[in-house]
Amino acid sequence: MKLSEIGEEALIERIIKANNLPKSAPGLVLGAGDDCAVLSQDEHGMFVLLTTDMLTEEIDFRLDLISPYQIGWKSVAVNLSDIAAMGGEPTWTFPSLGFRPDTEIEFVDEIFRGMTECAARYGSQIAGGDMNSVVGEMILSLTQLGKVEPEFLALRSNARIGDRILVTGQLGDSRGGLELLLKYGLDEANRLSAPLVKAHLMPVPRILEARAAVSTEFVNAMMDLSDGLGSDLPKLCKASRVGALIYSDKIPVSPDLRAAAAQLGLDALEHAASGGEDFELLMTVRPEHVDKVIEVVHSKTSTMVSEIGEIIEGSEVELISPQGDKHKLSIGWQHFI
Amino acid sequence: MKLSEIGEEALIERIIKANNLPKSAPGLVLGAGDDCAVLSQDEHGMFVLLTTDMLTEEIDFRLDLISPYQIGWKSVAVNLSDIAAMGGEPTWTFPSLGFRPDTEIEFVDEIFRGMTECAARYGSQIAGGDMNSVVGEMILSLTQLGKVEPEFLALRSNARIGDRILVTGQLGDSRGGLELLLKYGLDEANRLSAPLVKAHLMPVPRILEARAAVSTEFVNAMMDLSDGLGSDLPKLCKASRVGALIYSDKIPVSPDLRAAAAQLGLDALEHAASGGEDFELLMTVRPEHVDKVIEVVHSKTSTMVSEIGEIIEGSEVELISPQGDKHKLSIGWQHFI
Repeated sequence: MKLSEIGEEALIERIIKANNLPKSAPGLVLGAGDDCAVLSQDEHGMFVLLTTDMLTEEIDFRLDLISPYQIGWKSVAVNLSDIAAMGGEPTWTFPSLGFRPDTEIEFVDEIFRGMTECAARYGSQIAGGDMNSVVGEMILSLTQLGKVEPEFLALRSNARIGDRILVTGQLGDSRGGLELLLKYGLDEANRLSAPLVKAHLMPVPRILEARAAVSTEFVNAMMDLSDGLGSDLPKLCKASRVGALIYSDKIPVSPDLRAAAAQLGLDALEHAASGGEDFELLMTVRPEHVDKVIEVVHSKTSTMVSEIGEIIEGSEVELISPQGDKHKLSIGWQHFI
Repeated sequence: MKLSEIGEEALIERIIKANNLPKSAPGLVLGAGDDCAVLSQDEHGMFVLLTTDMLTEEIDFRLDLISPYQIGWKSVAVNLSDIAAMGGEPTWTFPSLGFRPDTEIEFVDEIFRGMTECAARYGSQIAGGDMNSVVGEMILSLTQLGKVEPEFLALRSNARIGDRILVTGQLGDSRGGLELLLKYGLDEANRLSAPLVKAHLMPVPRILEARAAVSTEFVNAMMDLSDGLGSDLPKLCKASRVGALIYSDKIPVSPDLRAAAAQLGLDALEHAASGGEDFELLMTVRPEHVDKVIEVVHSKTSTMVSEIGEIIEGSEVELISPQGDKHKLSIGWQHFI
């Protein structure tokens, strides 16, 4: 059987099972399966977070649609987003990069400028890495360390029935930007909607929002939306052994996305629900604490937080319209398929 | 200018300078520039080591010359070797992998079996990672964590004038195996010299030897030989601001390599001095402690240790024959060039 027939999620489950990879162990609070691994405490009593995320040319970016500075920025941002997802603060960044020998040095300079600036913006620094040659597509494989107070650690597996589901920001902007880029190219896409293009090319890791949210100690479960609500919410539900109901009219959709969707002849809500790379936070919170979490995040960061659904019994993840019609959430991004 | 004109080493120096990457900082004992980054102490007072090393198809391996199990083994072994180079013990392994969607699942299973077994053999476990699709060459980018007692930490930068230079094992076997593989293919190469082929396909990280050596507290400087003595010794000398003299007749060359070199019409010593991927340890030790270090490593691991030269003033790294002829060491592997 080929990877394209099994898909990323089932493959990872298979590997964890076949190799008996540890869920936890002495020194390892949490192994594979969440946004970061969680390692035992450092000298200051903080848990250490580690995530690794790879961007590859052609799959994750095309050189005609993104600048090298933005490639560097994005490669760090997607890793920082995993630190945010655990409620943590970034500490150290380790890029392991693969370039063709005919790559211009100035191109690599720009990638590092983007990486360094994104890292610095969120309190991290490049502290090592590796440089390799490749014969084909460029590779950016980053490892990001972070730290989190044990009481602030947020996992995917702690959602409880009755929790409300919150998201930061607006969903689908990144996907809208991608659609514009693919259809019109960089210049014309920017002219049509610079905000959507920027959402796709230079995502903002929600570090500050995550820190504000976990500081309330009211966040039960959390993850970042990297593959789209339709792919990621089922992962959170599976980890927590619960189901979820999303109110379709509550999904935050930006006016920019609505305008672009109209232009492209696409459904804005569909893109918001299934589009990947928003890197917004998905949280579950007890109903009585929803207002407090929304208020604290908004007052500390100016970022809007929307209540979009609730955690229910079972294992289904469904979208419900104001008229009461239910249907399954569209699947977002999955590697190999 | 292209990367092929500047090369890996100068590129890394340029990046460190342009982005003002920290040599050290609060929480960071040592940043980019050695085999591992060294992070501040964990809850047990140990330094945390982090290294990241990538293998890419076509550059680092060819699928017709290595089994998937061996690819997995080697991808972990090369990272463990960096932990050994600092005097540390491995703790956690994080593979970030890129496969084409048409890859067979059983191929990936075998890679993970090799990774898991190599990690377990040296006390590490896979504790997370990332799975990605690629359009071209397969990628294995691993991050390895380790730990080391602060008093056992071994750096490249501590060689002192007058130190003797030691290496574990024998040099050039891996390169000899590679030459056989490239010329004769897997089956015939194995028939000609299974030990050399194995040295290339399944390198042994010198964790036990490194731990034995640093336990004497007589190791001044240490690194692993991943790119060959001719590339790596100059890095150690540059970091320590010293030069080195290698006695050509003292470089340990195996009978297997001599036989293969004769068959291939190549110079065995030349290959031992410049060949990469031996993953042996290069150490510097005060003259009066050489015997003790050799004895402790040998008695604890049965691995031979050879004295091959001395650290001298200046910045030259030269090979000297028994007749007193000096010439520069041949350069080993460097990416992009």
